[in-house]
Amino acid sequence: MENKKKIAVFFGERSFEHDISILTGLQAFRAIDTTKYEPFPVYVDLDGKWWTGEKLLDSSTYPLTKEKQKTVTPVEFKIGGERAHILPLKKGLFGRAKPIYFDFAFLAFHGGYGEDGLFQGLMETAGIPYSGCRPLAATVFMDKIATKRVCKAIGVPVLDDVLIKRPEGKDFFDVEKLAKDVKFKFPVIVKPCSLGSSIGVSKANNKEELYAAILKVFALDSLAMVEPFVPNLEEYNVSVCNAFGETRFSAIERPIKNNDAVLSFEDKYKAGGKNGKAGKMGGTKTCGCKGGNSGRISAGMLAMTRALNPKELSKKQAENIKAWAAAIFNELRACGNARIDFLCDTKTGQMWLGEVNPIPGSLSYFLWEAAEPKVGFTKLVNALIEEGFRQEEKYSDFLKTISDNRIFK
Amino acid sequence: MENKKKIAVFFGERSFEHDISILTGLQAFRAIDTTKYEPFPVYVDLDGKWWTGEKLLDSSTYPLTKEKQKTVTPVEFKIGGERAHILPLKKGLFGRAKPIYFDFAFLAFHGGYGEDGLFQGLMETAGIPYSGCRPLAATVFMDKIATKRVCKAIGVPVLDDVLIKRPEGKDFFDVEKLAKDVKFKFPVIVKPCSLGSSIGVSKANNKEELYAAILKVFALDSLAMVEPFVPNLEEYNVSVCNAFGETRFSAIERPIKNNDAVLSFEDKYKAGGKNGKAGKMGGTKTCGCKGGNSGRISAGMLAMTRALNPKELSKKQAENIKAWAAAIFNELRACGNARIDFLCDTKTGQMWLGEVNPIPGSLSYFLWEAAEPKVGFTKLVNALIEEGFRQEEKYSDFLKTISDNRIFK
Repeated sequence: MENKKKIAVFFGERSFEHDISILTGLQAFRAIDTTKYEPFPVYVDLDGKWWTGEKLLDSSTYPLTKEKQKTVTPVEFKIGGERAHILPLKKGLFGRAKPIYFDFAFLAFHGGYGEDGLFQGLMETAGIPYSGCRPLAATVFMDKIATKRVCKAIGVPVLDDVLIKRPEGKDFFDVEKLAKDVKFKFPVIVKPCSLGSSIGVSKANNKEELYAAILKVFALDSLAMVEPFVPNLEEYNVSVCNAFGETRFSAIERPIKNNDAVLSFEDKYKAGGKNGKAGKMGGTKTCGCKGGNSGRISAGMLAMTRALNPKELSKKQAENIKAWAAAIFNELRACGNARIDFLCDTKTGQMWLGEVNPIPGSLSYFLWEAAEPKVGFTKLVNALIEEGFRQEEKYSDFLKTISDNRIFK
Repeated sequence: MENKKKIAVFFGERSFEHDISILTGLQAFRAIDTTKYEPFPVYVDLDGKWWTGEKLLDSSTYPLTKEKQKTVTPVEFKIGGERAHILPLKKGLFGRAKPIYFDFAFLAFHGGYGEDGLFQGLMETAGIPYSGCRPLAATVFMDKIATKRVCKAIGVPVLDDVLIKRPEGKDFFDVEKLAKDVKFKFPVIVKPCSLGSSIGVSKANNKEELYAAILKVFALDSLAMVEPFVPNLEEYNVSVCNAFGETRFSAIERPIKNNDAVLSFEDKYKAGGKNGKAGKMGGTKTCGCKGGNSGRISAGMLAMTRALNPKELSKKQAENIKAWAAAIFNELRACGNARIDFLCDTKTGQMWLGEVNPIPGSLSYFLWEAAEPKVGFTKLVNALIEEGFRQEEKYSDFLKTISDNRIFK
């Protein structure tokens, strides 16, 4: 029992996908093999404050109101000393808080601060092994421009784009000039460059809508990306993982959309809440929730419906999706099980990269359960933990050679 | 006086360029305008432990032996609570250490953990404004593969390359197969993919040397990059900065090499120690050291010689260097004053990107002093600090819109 590695399961953070991360965090927590590991939750709230405690495992604790804060423990994280650790801010019985040491950080963040390399940088600095992408892959994948440029260089198809920068200060935006800069025919798709999960994405059919769409992005991001609209659009997503000692692929999914334009945040996470029928559609499967809170949680992303290994995809198309996904994943030496989304014009069959999610919602466990060979959620989580531990050796051993490079001796 | 912003100047870290970072840190510290700011040093040692104290400003304190550790103060960094801060581990007079709050982190790191996005991720997580590149540009620029792929996509010329992966476990390396995989004619250049400052870089004239060069890289990095050798090689470097409200360029430098193959770590940082005559060469300028310790410090990189705005470069070549440097800098929305190095075949005039240094040695101040218009070191450092403060607003304001995306209400 004492030899079990202690695993901090992190979720939350200052992110537009804060609540989705709570769901993924609770799911991942329940999937951890407790015969091997001793998990405990660490919740980072919307202000960046850290909390721990059993109550964080109960979804009725969220949102963490002032009242509910009394049921959990505020903590700080200390680095730069002998060993990085968590320190409760509440004093123990004898006036001294007991430090919480842990061996591994399981990251269940989505979006800003947690999925985009920032928290990964913190864990690297603290010397604590962690799950998923290293900072390079995480930062690049969460940036639409950088991801597309790397894809282009290695032959993964991407849509052409025009970038529009938010004017400094009180500069006025000329609608005519904007429409001219955007060289594509309408309709176009407008999106923020650095946010995930379709937040701020819209379709513009004319100049006026383009202007409105750009302004919507500028409330979220200083840089907007405009792309040609893909007609007859379907999305196909696949998750990639090297944690089993070889590049493996999950099942491919086609998400079911509520409208014909873009897969919105509502489509992704609120379908069940708005449209209870979605789960009953033929040929699709509802992603159910494990544990005791499914009734409440399923109002969100868990009710989203998807077609798994959709039959309309040709063998060649499925092979392309996998080859492209592996190419970008491996070019950036990614870890974890990023989900890589592709756009398809179903009339022509042409496909392009959509976006990459370093830490996909629910860790894409439903795609792995439908993979060939099947990977259960606990097996997936175990593999991600073991991979994270293996990453640790990489650099520290080599630093001993630094003596050659010293000036001060 | 009380209103002065407190600036922690960070240097050191678990890096092959640890000592160079100490030099840059001390230089940057002395250049900070103390009528505006109140700087204090924070040294991160080779084990990742943090220290502060006046004595860190004296170069005779390094290496920080057990004995010398007694003259400085060990500290820890606390995040996740009300406000991130440094806490001395030595207790004060009444048994309680006094927290050190600071408003800004000036990063003078080179290489691993400090220049490559990791420390930047820590500062982002801590909510502390900092100087230089954000995590995206820092991680990409410190990775040779990602940098080259982005360059290729946007039309900045790069050399072709072949990547060789370190075998797992005890796999044997076949010299013949290796030479076949490397499709270029000998000689070739072999380098680690993720380390800066020419560490581990060598030239291979034949199969056997290739094998040895690859093994040398594998002691430092799990991935080796092999490129064709550029004959008649000179390097041209330029530093780019947006901190003055427009894209500005430093003077272009041509470093003076000690041998005809590659600019080695010795060339870059130890030239003065090995070859006192270098500083006297015609048409070159020795980069002197400010402050009281120049005699000792100048044994290192500060004695390196360089030709500034070298006359052999045509106007067109200089324009190309600046245009390419700005293109990669701005594509990744870089901050700070990264130095971007180019390789040139002086017979053909052809040029390629060499590497990007997010935090260049000595912050490239000698290049900025020779820029048009001239930028003094203090003016440069001031601009980097002000730019870092400006970056802070970017995201936090927008998070208030998160209420639209909440599942738990």
